[in-house]
Amino acid sequence: MYIVHVFCHVKPEHVAAFKAACLDNARSSVQEPGVARFDVIQQEDDPTRFVLVEVYRTPNDPAAHKETTHYATWAETTADMFVEPRSKLIYSNVFPDDNGWG
Amino acid sequence: MYIVHVFCHVKPEHVAAFKAACLDNARSSVQEPGVARFDVIQQEDDPTRFVLVEVYRTPNDPAAHKETTHYATWAETTADMFVEPRSKLIYSNVFPDDNGWG
Repeated sequence: MYIVHVFCHVKPEHVAAFKAACLDNARSSVQEPGVARFDVIQQEDDPTRFVLVEVYRTPNDPAAHKETTHYATWAETTADMFVEPRSKLIYSNVFPDDNGWG
Repeated sequence: MYIVHVFCHVKPEHVAAFKAACLDNARSSVQEPGVARFDVIQQEDDPTRFVLVEVYRTPNDPAAHKETTHYATWAETTADMFVEPRSKLIYSNVFPDDNGWG
């Protein structure tokens, strides 16, 4: 799997709107054939920090995701909500194997 | 859900053994009633860096995990493999809701 962790640091006044935008985006993203998971998680000791845990089936699937209207809407809606530009790290799976990601 | 990301930075010569120890631990951990997921992922641009993505059903379940023999074996096996002490961050789920984590 091609796993992307996207780190988002959001201005406090935008936390609720950011969560709503991420919910809309995640609900559509998990419908994409190339997306196995699209989790959104919020840091316990700093609720302005989120991680989007995006699990793609192949390295080509993130590009397909970025062509969707739901991604465009999310990116536009959240553009002014960030404290700093979002960053990402890429991972591969050790466990489970490729059949274990839904 | 009570989601723990454990960040592991491993000495290069121990990467293969660390992966093997994590596989053993993860396969047993996902059998625990309090564990919804126990993913092990390896960073693409630095294969000495791993994240254990531990998804617990309640905040009490990590303590139960740490009482298992498989955790004790993992901790003992990997004790001398780290470049620096492992660290962790705690998250709660925004998406999916509690029913979506398996």
